[in-house]
Amino acid sequence: MRRRGLLIILSSPSGAGKSSLAKRLMAWDPSLKFSVSATTRQPRPGEVDGVDYYFKSHEEFEKLIADGGMLEHAEVFGNYYGSPQGPIDEAIAEGRDTIFDIDWQGGQQIRRSKLAQDVVSIFILPPSIADLESRLRGRAQDSDEVIEKRMSQSRNEISHWAEYDYVIVNRDLDKAEEELKTILTAERARASRQPQLTEFVRGLNKEFEDR
Amino acid sequence: MRRRGLLIILSSPSGAGKSSLAKRLMAWDPSLKFSVSATTRQPRPGEVDGVDYYFKSHEEFEKLIADGGMLEHAEVFGNYYGSPQGPIDEAIAEGRDTIFDIDWQGGQQIRRSKLAQDVVSIFILPPSIADLESRLRGRAQDSDEVIEKRMSQSRNEISHWAEYDYVIVNRDLDKAEEELKTILTAERARASRQPQLTEFVRGLNKEFEDR
Repeated sequence: MRRRGLLIILSSPSGAGKSSLAKRLMAWDPSLKFSVSATTRQPRPGEVDGVDYYFKSHEEFEKLIADGGMLEHAEVFGNYYGSPQGPIDEAIAEGRDTIFDIDWQGGQQIRRSKLAQDVVSIFILPPSIADLESRLRGRAQDSDEVIEKRMSQSRNEISHWAEYDYVIVNRDLDKAEEELKTILTAERARASRQPQLTEFVRGLNKEFEDR
Repeated sequence: MRRRGLLIILSSPSGAGKSSLAKRLMAWDPSLKFSVSATTRQPRPGEVDGVDYYFKSHEEFEKLIADGGMLEHAEVFGNYYGSPQGPIDEAIAEGRDTIFDIDWQGGQQIRRSKLAQDVVSIFILPPSIADLESRLRGRAQDSDEVIEKRMSQSRNEISHWAEYDYVIVNRDLDKAEEELKTILTAERARASRQPQLTEFVRGLNKEFEDR
């Protein structure tokens, strides 16, 4: 019997290194699946439909919600964002772990869903706000106004850190990566997540009987 | 603010390598404290009072129980065994993690006590019953009758594996040690166990205010 796949929720303010960490985790364990979010916002230059996001119209998105096709969703700055249910059910059944790069609203909804037992949630904090801001400005795609909006969003995001199972302060990307791997390895080793143990202990009992 | 010390419960049938693993953990992290059990059974040759066990008379032990001085206790083969409360309260307050080498009865009582939030419980399984028996016989201290008694006790002990947070099959002592360290490192990283994070996030908020 296969174990159920985990739902690994990574949240952080933008600029705290969450996406780099998610990429490193996926390089470390190629069996990990990335949950591609759906959104109604416009694609940015270079973004590919089905890879970065599933780009949907408002109408399509609302139909998906109505049909129960979204595990979680939220509205941010007038656009919908959400995690499609289908690929997640598949991954759980296949025993593959899925990484979610989502905000606290999404994390909270998944933690309160019927899949709560499968969730491992991790919040990434920046070492300082100065560091966070300089990383945001370093991306150099955004106007001052957008930066201010993101900083205020970051403050709100950070206020939810204590709802997560684990918190990592990303002072050093290598160390943060090690911490993530350790957490994932331990969570996979939980007794409740090793269904093959039932069969193994049955074997031990058989050995007792046959002595 | 210091985090509270963890109560790390290791249980297994005798001969599965639990004591070797406990020793290795303590060598890896000398800040770990070992919970010395109290017992009314007679000391075996070489056993030292206060190191291997606190050896008590039946009367003394029953007084300790009556005074609330035992975190858990059980009667096995007509003798009392238990974990004295005092050193455990000290370790929790000091933020030191304590290792308990105890059976399922003790584990169950601690998991149900007011210290439940501090518990990480790990069950060590042998790779096979043949292996378990040969390790028991290898110790060469016990008569066939005692071996039979231990084997039957082992079967009972193993039947409680699913009550534990984690299960490790001890096929290889080095690998089992690595698994234990990973579990301990991850459990220490839980958000709820890092009280210094509250202060850290307060600092981030201050930085937001001062921008």
